[in-house]
Amino acid sequence: MFYLIGLGLGDAKDITVKGLEIVRQCSRVYLEAYTSEEFYGTKLTLADRETVEQEADEILKDADITDVAFLVVGDPFGATTHSDLVLRAVKAGIPYRVIHNASIMNAVGCCGLQLYNFGETVSIVFWTDSWKPESFYDKIKRNRQNGMHTLCLLDIKIKEQSLENLMKGKKIYDPPRYMSVNQAAEQLLEIIQNRRNQDKELAITENTICVGLARVGAINQKIAAGTLQQMVNVEMGGPLHSMIITGSLHPLEIDMLKLFAVDKSSFENIRMEDSSTYVS
Amino acid sequence: MFYLIGLGLGDAKDITVKGLEIVRQCSRVYLEAYTSEEFYGTKLTLADRETVEQEADEILKDADITDVAFLVVGDPFGATTHSDLVLRAVKAGIPYRVIHNASIMNAVGCCGLQLYNFGETVSIVFWTDSWKPESFYDKIKRNRQNGMHTLCLLDIKIKEQSLENLMKGKKIYDPPRYMSVNQAAEQLLEIIQNRRNQDKELAITENTICVGLARVGAINQKIAAGTLQQMVNVEMGGPLHSMIITGSLHPLEIDMLKLFAVDKSSFENIRMEDSSTYVS
Repeated sequence: MFYLIGLGLGDAKDITVKGLEIVRQCSRVYLEAYTSEEFYGTKLTLADRETVEQEADEILKDADITDVAFLVVGDPFGATTHSDLVLRAVKAGIPYRVIHNASIMNAVGCCGLQLYNFGETVSIVFWTDSWKPESFYDKIKRNRQNGMHTLCLLDIKIKEQSLENLMKGKKIYDPPRYMSVNQAAEQLLEIIQNRRNQDKELAITENTICVGLARVGAINQKIAAGTLQQMVNVEMGGPLHSMIITGSLHPLEIDMLKLFAVDKSSFENIRMEDSSTYVS
Repeated sequence: MFYLIGLGLGDAKDITVKGLEIVRQCSRVYLEAYTSEEFYGTKLTLADRETVEQEADEILKDADITDVAFLVVGDPFGATTHSDLVLRAVKAGIPYRVIHNASIMNAVGCCGLQLYNFGETVSIVFWTDSWKPESFYDKIKRNRQNGMHTLCLLDIKIKEQSLENLMKGKKIYDPPRYMSVNQAAEQLLEIIQNRRNQDKELAITENTICVGLARVGAINQKIAAGTLQQMVNVEMGGPLHSMIITGSLHPLEIDMLKLFAVDKSSFENIRMEDSSTYVS
C-alpha cells in the first residue's frame, strides 16, 4: 500500500495516531521536509519536490507488496497537491490511501473568520524589479465585491539559484526566503496606489481590515487583525506567514477579530469606515 | 487551559498524537458526538449543540486552574465554528489552545480538485413541501462563472421534533436525517428546470461534472465523478455525504476525476460538452 500521510501544521506530534501507526509499520518512509526522525521512530528519507518529480518510480517501487509512506506537511491535498504520485500509483496498480490532517486551508479558521465566507484563495508572489504581477489583486477584489474573505498564501523560495550560479551550472542555492505579512501588505498598497486613479470601484483601501497569521498550529502562533496599513509594520515573527483580506464581516467574526486587534481601541471605528469601501 | 481539539474525519485514531496526550491529561473532557471512550482512555461527557449553548459556563468552569478539553469532529473551526466558546473563555480570563485536524473543508482535496480553485462553500438544505430555498444555486452559478468549483455541504437534521411532539411539549426526537448526494442532485435539477426559461445564463445543466463524496477520511470512503444527472442514481452508501459542482477543470484535475468516474468510457466526452455551458 502507498500511504500519503499529512503531518499537520505544528510539530512532529501533530501527526494523527493512525498516521503514526502506519509510519511505524512501513518499510520505507519519505518526507517532504525536515521533521523529527526520533519521534516517528523510523528511518526517514528526505524527498523534496525535485526528488519527487525525478524519482517517483523509486518512491513507489514495490509498494504493491510492501507498505510505503510519503509524509507531507499539512494535508496531502492542501495548498500543494500530490495528485501526480497518486496517478502514478494507480497506473502501476498500487493501492493508495490518504491520511488527512489540518492544513492552512482549514486551520485559518482559528482567527474566527468563518470558512464558508471565504472565496477563492490567492497566492502573492515576491516581486522583482522587472516583474510585478498584480493578478491576485483582481481576485481579492472579486471576492470582496461578493462579501467574501480572501486567504492569501505568501510566497516561499526554496532551493533558488542566483542567475550567476545558474549560468555557471553550480548547484549552489540561495538561502530560503519566506514572504512576510509586512511584505505582502506593502505590495498590495503599491497596487492600490497604481489603481487609485484608474479604478472607479476601488474595493480595497489602506483601511481594509486584514488578518496576519504566523506559524498557525504551532505553540507560538500569532494572529494580528488590523488595517492593511497596520499590516506593513506589525511584528509577526518567523515564517510561515499568511494574510487574509476580509470581506463582509458578521458580528461574531468581528468579536473574534477584536481578540487579535493590533489596536483594540480603534478597531470598531476602522471597520465602520472600511465597510463603505465595498461595492455590493 | 481550555483546549479545543479536532478529531478529524474517520475514526477515533484520527486524533493527533498531541491531541490524545492532552485528552489524557485533562480533568474534564467533553465531546460533540459519540466517539470511542475506550480508545481515548478517559471519561467523556457528551455535549451536543444544545448542551454547549446552555451549559457553556459549566464546560469552562475552573479551566483557568485545571485542563478541560472539548472534542470536535473535524477541525474546531471547520464547517461548524466554536467561536462562542472561545469568546466566553477569553472573557473569563481562561487561556485556550486549538489543536487542529482535517475537516471536510480541506480533506475534499482527496478527489483531485485543487483547493485553491474552490469558490464560496454552500449549504444545501432539505426542502419541504412549502419551503424550497434556491439561494445556493446563485452562489454555485457565481462560482462557476468565475471558473471555480463549489463544495456543497449537505443538510443534517439531528434532534428534530415533529410538529406534533413540539406542540405537545414532548422531548421525543425524529431519527436523524442526512441528505444524500442523490437528494442534493435532485433538488439542483429541479432548480435548473425552474430556471431554464427565465435564466439566459444557465451556468449549470444536467451535464455539469459533479463529484459525490461519502465518508471522507474513513476506510470505506467513496468518491464518484460524473454528470449532475448521474449523481441522482449513484450509490454512495451511508452518511455523511458532500457534493462538488466543478468549475473550470485543469488537465491534472480531469486525470484525477477519471479515477472516480461513474462511467469511465464517457467521462471525457461529457466534459467537452459541459465546458460550453459556462459563461466566461
